[in-house]
Amino acid sequence: MAKSNVTFQDIAQYTGFSKTTISRYFNHPDTVTPQNQAIIREALEKLGYQSNKVARILAKGQTEFIGLIIPNLYLSFYAEILDEFLKSYEKYGYKFLVFSGGQGEEAERQYIQELLAYHVEGLIVLSHTIPSLELASYDLPLVTIEREDQYVSSINTDNYQGGVEATELLHRCGCDVYLHINIPVLGKKTPAFRRIDGFRDVCRKYDLPHEFLSYKGESSYQDLAEKLHVITDDIARKYPGKRKGIFCSNDTIANIVSNHLLRNHSRDLEDYRLIGFDGSPVSEQAVYPISTIAQQIDQLVDGAMELIVDQIRIRKKDPSALLEPVHRTVAPVLISRATTEEV
Amino acid sequence: MAKSNVTFQDIAQYTGFSKTTISRYFNHPDTVTPQNQAIIREALEKLGYQSNKVARILAKGQTEFIGLIIPNLYLSFYAEILDEFLKSYEKYGYKFLVFSGGQGEEAERQYIQELLAYHVEGLIVLSHTIPSLELASYDLPLVTIEREDQYVSSINTDNYQGGVEATELLHRCGCDVYLHINIPVLGKKTPAFRRIDGFRDVCRKYDLPHEFLSYKGESSYQDLAEKLHVITDDIARKYPGKRKGIFCSNDTIANIVSNHLLRNHSRDLEDYRLIGFDGSPVSEQAVYPISTIAQQIDQLVDGAMELIVDQIRIRKKDPSALLEPVHRTVAPVLISRATTEEV
Repeated sequence: MAKSNVTFQDIAQYTGFSKTTISRYFNHPDTVTPQNQAIIREALEKLGYQSNKVARILAKGQTEFIGLIIPNLYLSFYAEILDEFLKSYEKYGYKFLVFSGGQGEEAERQYIQELLAYHVEGLIVLSHTIPSLELASYDLPLVTIEREDQYVSSINTDNYQGGVEATELLHRCGCDVYLHINIPVLGKKTPAFRRIDGFRDVCRKYDLPHEFLSYKGESSYQDLAEKLHVITDDIARKYPGKRKGIFCSNDTIANIVSNHLLRNHSRDLEDYRLIGFDGSPVSEQAVYPISTIAQQIDQLVDGAMELIVDQIRIRKKDPSALLEPVHRTVAPVLISRATTEEV
Repeated sequence: MAKSNVTFQDIAQYTGFSKTTISRYFNHPDTVTPQNQAIIREALEKLGYQSNKVARILAKGQTEFIGLIIPNLYLSFYAEILDEFLKSYEKYGYKFLVFSGGQGEEAERQYIQELLAYHVEGLIVLSHTIPSLELASYDLPLVTIEREDQYVSSINTDNYQGGVEATELLHRCGCDVYLHINIPVLGKKTPAFRRIDGFRDVCRKYDLPHEFLSYKGESSYQDLAEKLHVITDDIARKYPGKRKGIFCSNDTIANIVSNHLLRNHSRDLEDYRLIGFDGSPVSEQAVYPISTIAQQIDQLVDGAMELIVDQIRIRKKDPSALLEPVHRTVAPVLISRATTEEV
């Protein structure tokens, strides 16, 4: 039986040529004598070597490329998502053309246009830059994760459930006041904002004193830290002697708050209960490991690949088939650690 | 003057068609009437729209793709390097096909073979999997960063200088004993092992008591942490009452050691001086910010892009030109923080 993936090593072994010669055959065939070319060609056939990919694009219009647009690699959530997508190569064979946002809207549009011109087979979008209505107009297999998704297919964590579980845990810790730190809600339909609804609903259910605290978008980690130090000091001043339950919209925020408390409010540490969101390494690596609502990144990525492979299959059968938006959710997982000691 | 990058929005505005129509023109031209196709074609010419990229690959053999092979996204050094490469899109226009190691040697070879078959214009390799002799045999523009590089071009931090500066700083802190934690040296010519030489040379210069401590490769963060906890406890037991200067081979290690000291040896904290390597966010985000030897990631990436663009240019002029290995280094930057208080 032919090996599914013949390596240069295999071809070199079979023909007795060096790997350099095999490489030259593929990249600069004119530097290999016609006789040797014939020997290698025959070996390729015998070994069942995959045909030239560029020829395959031309013949079938299949690039086996998927464009992947992420907002940044600064939040470890995105680094982990990207890592998981790249690992799917072995299972699905798709190669990822990766674009990182933060280069502005025009650069992102230009990049997507280039991807379209290269006939990528699909797009996976995590950046918040381009409205889903415009994404839908590209009319190709497309899945979003954790961003506004009205007109396109998506897979997201059940953020409402996550907000509920985080707040219920703080409630079991017997807190006197409940605080949620997040970026300001700007009327955008970002799935993550459902965490706020979960927080509010639990607070109302038990009639708990609560407050929503927001900061404006940050320009750097240092800037984010400074904004959160102010918020943390304000909380300490406003609620002295009360047990404060703080639910942060991600683990990076929770870690900054935790470090600031350890450095500047260490005498009152027992007055605080803290939980983050995402299940990022930073929550595990903190001096006192931080409780978190973990997103199941493997399931998000698996689900996204299933959705897009499905759309690609549909389009291969019928290039003008409509791609109806499908929305899936993945359950979050509560991880209780040192910062949410129950009483 | 024509805009350098015409968007679908521009074309829609110019023609009065919707963006969906413009998108369909590019992706499913048969769904646009011949009259409207003619109007759009004329608009594209007027606006100076870039010609179809696939046509361009065919005409010139230029894909504008570079393959990028990283070992993982788990160490933030690699996430930061990747982010910086992706940001170079605006400057150089290259798009990156990214592969993350940890899927084994065969998967990595197969991926590279696919990239070669797609005629990527070059490869940037940070993984340690494939020897540079084999990389050189691919015979295409190629640059490595921080890995064995004997037969290929590379750009690395001046690791020896970094080791010297870290140890000199610990010496200024008046430590009694000097410890360096790193993975075992396996006879590989990894540039990072030059840090050990820098450490040893400074210790010998001042005749300082010193020890090299190593752990075997880790299977996960938790596994790494457990191994380092054992090493940290051993150091505490072996050198009671002495001022211990610990130089860690990266910031993730330094953070684990720092957290373990804070949790389990907090009474003796003043006996420790600690410095990491890389300048990763984790060093800044620790409860007590950790001193580090920062790698200048922007300069490493800029240098790598310059080297590869140069090789691509040479090969375009003469496809059989030899690509001589060029090795460049970037100076490290000492960042002194709370963990290396001088006396």
